[in-house]
Amino acid sequence: MSKKIKLAILGGGGDSLIGILHRVASGMFDQFEVVGGVFNVDLEESQNFARKIGIGTNRIYKDLDGLIAAENALPEEERVQVVSILTPNFLHYPMAKQLLENDFHVICEKPLTTTYEEAKILEETYKNSNSIFAVTYTYTGYPMVRQMKEMIAEGVLGKIQKIDVQYYQGWINPIIHDEEKRANTWRLNPEKSGISCCVGDIGTHAFDMIEYVSGMEVKNILADLNYLYRDNRMDIDGTILLRFDEYVKGVIRTSQIATGEENNFTVSIYGEKAGLKWEQENPNYLYLLEEGEPMRVLKPGHAYNSKLSLDGTKLPPGHPEGIFDSMGNIYKGVARAIRKEDYHPGEFPTIHDGIRGMNFIEKAVESHRQGNIWVEIDE
Amino acid sequence: MSKKIKLAILGGGGDSLIGILHRVASGMFDQFEVVGGVFNVDLEESQNFARKIGIGTNRIYKDLDGLIAAENALPEEERVQVVSILTPNFLHYPMAKQLLENDFHVICEKPLTTTYEEAKILEETYKNSNSIFAVTYTYTGYPMVRQMKEMIAEGVLGKIQKIDVQYYQGWINPIIHDEEKRANTWRLNPEKSGISCCVGDIGTHAFDMIEYVSGMEVKNILADLNYLYRDNRMDIDGTILLRFDEYVKGVIRTSQIATGEENNFTVSIYGEKAGLKWEQENPNYLYLLEEGEPMRVLKPGHAYNSKLSLDGTKLPPGHPEGIFDSMGNIYKGVARAIRKEDYHPGEFPTIHDGIRGMNFIEKAVESHRQGNIWVEIDE
Amino acid sequence: MSKKIKLAILGGGGDSLIGILHRVASGMFDQFEVVGGVFNVDLEESQNFARKIGIGTNRIYKDLDGLIAAENALPEEERVQVVSILTPNFLHYPMAKQLLENDFHVICEKPLTTTYEEAKILEETYKNSNSIFAVTYTYTGYPMVRQMKEMIAEGVLGKIQKIDVQYYQGWINPIIHDEEKRANTWRLNPEKSGISCCVGDIGTHAFDMIEYVSGMEVKNILADLNYLYRDNRMDIDGTILLRFDEYVKGVIRTSQIATGEENNFTVSIYGEKAGLKWEQENPNYLYLLEEGEPMRVLKPGHAYNSKLSLDGTKLPPGHPEGIFDSMGNIYKGVARAIRKEDYHPGEFPTIHDGIRGMNFIEKAVESHRQGNIWVEIDE
Amino acid sequence: MSKKIKLAILGGGGDSLIGILHRVASGMFDQFEVVGGVFNVDLEESQNFARKIGIGTNRIYKDLDGLIAAENALPEEERVQVVSILTPNFLHYPMAKQLLENDFHVICEKPLTTTYEEAKILEETYKNSNSIFAVTYTYTGYPMVRQMKEMIAEGVLGKIQKIDVQYYQGWINPIIHDEEKRANTWRLNPEKSGISCCVGDIGTHAFDMIEYVSGMEVKNILADLNYLYRDNRMDIDGTILLRFDEYVKGVIRTSQIATGEENNFTVSIYGEKAGLKWEQENPNYLYLLEEGEPMRVLKPGHAYNSKLSLDGTKLPPGHPEGIFDSMGNIYKGVARAIRKEDYHPGEFPTIHDGIRGMNFIEKAVESHRQGNIWVEIDE
Ligand SMILES: NC(=O)c1ccc[n+]([C@@H]2O[C@H](COP(=O)([O-])OP(=O)(O)OC[C@H]3O[C@@H](n4cnc5c(N)ncnc54)[C@H](O)[C@@H]3O)[C@@H](O)[C@H]2O)c1
Ligand SMILES: NC(=O)c1ccc[n+]([C@@H]2O[C@H](COP(=O)([O-])OP(=O)(O)OC[C@H]3O[C@@H](n4cnc5c(N)ncnc54)[C@H](O)[C@@H]3O)[C@@H](O)[C@H]2O)c1
Ligand SMILES: NC(=O)c1ccc[n+]([C@@H]2O[C@H](COP(=O)([O-])OP(=O)(O)OC[C@H]3O[C@@H](n4cnc5c(N)ncnc54)[C@H](O)[C@@H]3O)[C@@H](O)[C@H]2O)c1
Ligand SMILES: NC(=O)c1ccc[n+]([C@@H]2O[C@H](COP(=O)([O-])OP(=O)(O)OC[C@H]3O[C@@H](n4cnc5c(N)ncnc54)[C@H](O)[C@@H]3O)[C@@H](O)[C@H]2O)c1
Repeated sequence: MSKKIKLAILGGGGDSLIGILHRVASGMFDQFEVVGGVFNVDLEESQNFARKIGIGTNRIYKDLDGLIAAENALPEEERVQVVSILTPNFLHYPMAKQLLENDFHVICEKPLTTTYEEAKILEETYKNSNSIFAVTYTYTGYPMVRQMKEMIAEGVLGKIQKIDVQYYQGWINPIIHDEEKRANTWRLNPEKSGISCCVGDIGTHAFDMIEYVSGMEVKNILADLNYLYRDNRMDIDGTILLRFDEYVKGVIRTSQIATGEENNFTVSIYGEKAGLKWEQENPNYLYLLEEGEPMRVLKPGHAYNSKLSLDGTKLPPGHPEGIFDSMGNIYKGVARAIRKEDYHPGEFPTIHDGIRGMNFIEKAVESHRQGNIWVEIDE
Repeated sequence: MSKKIKLAILGGGGDSLIGILHRVASGMFDQFEVVGGVFNVDLEESQNFARKIGIGTNRIYKDLDGLIAAENALPEEERVQVVSILTPNFLHYPMAKQLLENDFHVICEKPLTTTYEEAKILEETYKNSNSIFAVTYTYTGYPMVRQMKEMIAEGVLGKIQKIDVQYYQGWINPIIHDEEKRANTWRLNPEKSGISCCVGDIGTHAFDMIEYVSGMEVKNILADLNYLYRDNRMDIDGTILLRFDEYVKGVIRTSQIATGEENNFTVSIYGEKAGLKWEQENPNYLYLLEEGEPMRVLKPGHAYNSKLSLDGTKLPPGHPEGIFDSMGNIYKGVARAIRKEDYHPGEFPTIHDGIRGMNFIEKAVESHRQGNIWVEIDE
Repeated sequence: MSKKIKLAILGGGGDSLIGILHRVASGMFDQFEVVGGVFNVDLEESQNFARKIGIGTNRIYKDLDGLIAAENALPEEERVQVVSILTPNFLHYPMAKQLLENDFHVICEKPLTTTYEEAKILEETYKNSNSIFAVTYTYTGYPMVRQMKEMIAEGVLGKIQKIDVQYYQGWINPIIHDEEKRANTWRLNPEKSGISCCVGDIGTHAFDMIEYVSGMEVKNILADLNYLYRDNRMDIDGTILLRFDEYVKGVIRTSQIATGEENNFTVSIYGEKAGLKWEQENPNYLYLLEEGEPMRVLKPGHAYNSKLSLDGTKLPPGHPEGIFDSMGNIYKGVARAIRKEDYHPGEFPTIHDGIRGMNFIEKAVESHRQGNIWVEIDE
Repeated sequence: MSKKIKLAILGGGGDSLIGILHRVASGMFDQFEVVGGVFNVDLEESQNFARKIGIGTNRIYKDLDGLIAAENALPEEERVQVVSILTPNFLHYPMAKQLLENDFHVICEKPLTTTYEEAKILEETYKNSNSIFAVTYTYTGYPMVRQMKEMIAEGVLGKIQKIDVQYYQGWINPIIHDEEKRANTWRLNPEKSGISCCVGDIGTHAFDMIEYVSGMEVKNILADLNYLYRDNRMDIDGTILLRFDEYVKGVIRTSQIATGEENNFTVSIYGEKAGLKWEQENPNYLYLLEEGEPMRVLKPGHAYNSKLSLDGTKLPPGHPEGIFDSMGNIYKGVARAIRKEDYHPGEFPTIHDGIRGMNFIEKAVESHRQGNIWVEIDE
């Protein structure tokens, strides 16, 4: 009898962007089995999609209430154990809350919620549960990101003195410059999207990445956002100054109007002793810079990498793995946590990371609205 | 009830390199379900591995005979439909032959067999069957390789005039320079490995890639191989001159002693009108060169790519996919063929490609042995 | 008889960094002849250096007064026509002023002066002279920088919406972390170096580059500088937010503590229609990005480049030229101006650019000191 | 009085490609002074060009006879000391011979002569002279090429086991595919160009580079050239197998029909212990590869480089120098030799390198004509 972890998925239907990433990732290490869920708002569509991906329709539910009721009625060993929430942002909070209250483990897409307030309530619910809770900041699963984290932890850089992270895309250009389109895109509608477009969608990845790899916490930020048009209500670009302590500074640069950029997410961290650089679009290279030394280019799968990094590579060096493999590594960590096996805290981001992300988004908008002043991130 | 295609696997056990690539690839598009197989020579190991990857042990067999007998006894709709052969090279031929004779579809690792003779017999068996037969030249599944193929077919390069393909690795260095190690590695033992080490293992990828993307057939070759030590019986490096016709030439450069190289497989094709270049370690870039024009860098997922290429990309541009995704695309094509859906002949390499590969290997060794002379590839 | 322009040099002695750059640059197009100058404070050293570089010592002077007196006594056609000022920053102002007052043309290293006040006085002197005045922002001479300028002027990017310029070095690390060294380096001594180290030395290149290529003027800035130690009096790192108008923003990132970076100066400019990127360390590549189009990589010497760009390339494409060639192009433009030949205003930066640079430096420090607030750049 | 070395130039007129490279290079280190020469066949043109480059016309001669007669009549300390031969290939031999016979030092462009026979005669003349004789294989002056040479000499790679050098251009495409153009281009006319086009022009750079950096001599070659059209008499592409000894092999790949390539000259050398790679179009990077180690990227100007390499860099790391600087380094070495100062034999290629180059060209054509067989390079 199969020992795979039973996974249900909310959202991620055939019309979605992110569904396939989670399905492939969950299957990658033979640990999870997608048994059902609510793929779409419409039940019939959900069922059709279930058929398309070759799973039975008997555990496809009308909605989350239906799922919880039916699954709870099953004997424990047949029951869904973990649920992935891939629905639009505003549904993360209610869905996650209900799942926690019913003792399911949760894998939730970022951003965790739509407000910091919600995030804090969710934290309480989480604390009162026994559930594992992962937030899928996808990029933390890359082997060379993990290697960066471990090298910094080991002190390879010495005291960190400067952090510069860029997340540039250009996709919103054709929308933003068209008056009608920018009025009618849900992404640019605060009612549907929350208070931020660019910072909320990608700035938050940058923020999480910084805290993930550096092991430091951002204390204060000063944000300058750009809305580009007076009638546009959502930021689509922003530069955010960071302070870790008086003499440790950084910057997040994030844009959806960096014309022609695809998903150009780069991380540069400089310490007293050395610097490390990484680029998401070429994720299998990690650059180690030292004054007066030849630059070193680290790659996945080599014995010189840390255990955490090596755990995230499946083939020998030179066989490029990508974003599906990165997400797969996150799922692998969640599986270990669910199975109560040993795992490294760096294997998946937690609700704590999700909460900080929400605080960051709100504080960035606040700083900007008040005239680009310094504001404090909660501890 | 699940409509996934039932897949069994031979080889690919927990100790293998290639097993995980096929498992992930087969699951990637929700088309296949691994139901069992013979993962290892040892039944118990096979069963343990089945448990580890979370599938039942009831369809884990002692050997291929056992598999065929048991599966044939099942009602057709429950029976394994396709078998992936991931065993060491010398087992490809007998296993594939037996599977074809019993009407299973076959996905076979390269090289197809250990001799050209075997390959031709297998072809006959195949012709008398109704089976689909795929040979997993993994790299043909990359979206930008497929794009290269389509652009060449459309005439973007004009008449091809020069082809230069490199496949450089360095892994054999620590073995080849140690007298004892080189005497005792099976890879360097012709009895176990066939007549060629380097050409057989990676030169054959280069050869297939050339014919795949160019749509042309190599007519003659002249090979200069290197054995490095008098007591070494297998080539571990070679340069092979190619002739497509009198004025269309090329070269395959292949090595396992290119110290420090990992899996540095590159393809350069130059035509009257333009050139195209691609590198396996950075597979999401395709370089288009034209005299007097800025070089253009094509990337996956953009609408300017061909249908065949776009079919191989799962996320928007800028989300790097890798070798698992490449193999996944090959499995996707095989699924279409098995389901008798429409598919493009470029979706997976066939037994024909496997046979040509075997002929190429033998001819390369023959050319070298006879003093680096021109020899002819069979039609 | 030689028709070369007679050039004298102040500073640039054998112990200097920048002397060789100007000497090679001035000779590159056979337009200038170094006839003498004041290479060092010490006359004998100057004379020795003159011998070393193979020019006579008869026009080597004790100081600028001596030079002016002696040269003015010569018949006009023998007299030095132009003087390059390569001395430490605090000498630029008095030397330039005296030269202008005596009707010499001036080529002055950046930063123009040590204060904005001085710069404005110098401007008056300049306006009352008939001299050509160039400020050697070296990097504007690169063919692909010039090409960027021309493409932007032609509207290839459409309306510019975002500018991001980085100038990262790491060289000050070994000094800044050593209490004694940082106390005793003249670079970190405001009395000797002016009010800014990092912004003054390299931030000013970034600022000039932005205005040079974009053709726009920075209106407001908000600077966050880093001094790293309480006892350090000079910025060695800074992020500076830029505003061109309400919805056109940018950022300059500049550092001397970006450990392991050498001279990593990059320019990214994004417009409504396209983006352009350039990197100083690989100066012969210009990247053109357009939504949904393959990236294009422009290189020097191709007919598709503008006249201004092509004028800066001496050999066919593929023969890499570098920083000496870039400075050579600036000298070439100055020669044309001196000879009253036609030239493009983009051929060399002028006193106007030098003055804006000084204003920028002071305003950056002011913004930082006042708590990172927006300040205005003078028109 | 000037102590610069008096240099005359033959060829290199205003219509030439290579003239400016030598003029800039000779001036770069303040060692040479161009005093005259024969820039063009036509005296008036020569004189006009002399005026254009700002030197007197009194030492511009009608031809080499005139130059020699007039210069020999001058007192020794005023006389031209060294002559650079930049004329078309067929003039190298007679000019060099006459210069040697008259005791001038010679700097000669490659290829040394048009036949191996001429080269050997020239060698005799040289041996009977006291002259310095340099052959300008330009690329050997790059700091990272010199670094490669020194690292190999020091044993960083261990025993070399494989060499792969590529020199790809695409410029001849528009000519070769046009029947009329290919009939009328002097480059493709053996009477004007010698027996080889591609191997003679660029293959010879590849050959010299290999021997320069490896310190080894090529023993045997097997060439497969391409003429592309039956009516074309000159090779425009070729792959040449190399043997250094029984188990040390290599390949030169050279083309003028690699469509869209500019000057793509790359060097890869693999030894038992490590590999080194370098690319002419990005000359400031040297890649050191070791099994199981991060790749190291060496750059010019760092203290970790050899003395020979550092001598070829004028500015600190990160300030890219290029091909003019590379040629400048060669001239610097020649100046030292002329001045009888100490110098490293790697500072400039000699007549010996030029002679080997001629032998290589002839042997490559011979190997091809005889059906791609192994031929021996003379010792
Ligand atoms: N980690 C990353 O890098 C990354 C990348 C992209 C998207 N995301 C996140 O993933 C989430 C989904 O994004 P997407 O781009 O796939 O969105 P999408 O709009 O493409 O897809 C959303 C899916 O949810 C379904 N859905 C909507 N309401 C539902 C409901 N009530 N119950 C069940 N299903 C419902 C829709 O039918 C659709 O299939 C977002 O929160 C987004 O921020 C994360
Ligand atoms: N497409 C590619 O790029 C690529 C890459 C690597 C390997 N390969 C090919 O894949 C094949 C396997 O290579 P590998 O590196 O995984 O080899 P491996 O030696 O690592 O693994 C072979 C597996 O086969 C099992 N096996 C051996 N005999 C068996 C038998 N009789 N029945 C069932 N299982 C048996 C072994 O127990 C082991 O699990 C080879 O043919 C190789 O050429 C292809
Ligand atoms: N454009 C660029 O990218 C760039 C790069 C480096 C330096 N610079 C500028 O060039 C200038 C010089 O920098 P450097 O690094 O060569 O400095 P340096 O300290 O290395 O050299 C200064 C030279 O000036 C001479 N000198 C000092 N006082 C003198 C005097 N009174 N009269 C004549 N000579 C005198 C010194 O002897 C020395 O030779 C600075 O203003 C610097 O900002 C510009
Ligand atoms: N080292 C390199 O990488 C490199 C690159 C390009 C050219 N070259 C070599 O440089 C040489 C010249 O090449 P080029 O491309 O400049 O050629 P070119 O045809 O552009 O120029 C030749 C010059 O020689 C002059 N000339 C011809 N006959 C003369 C004579 N009898 N006396 C004096 N001058 C005469 C011509 O007027 C012209 O100025 C060739 O041998 C070529 O192989 C070397």
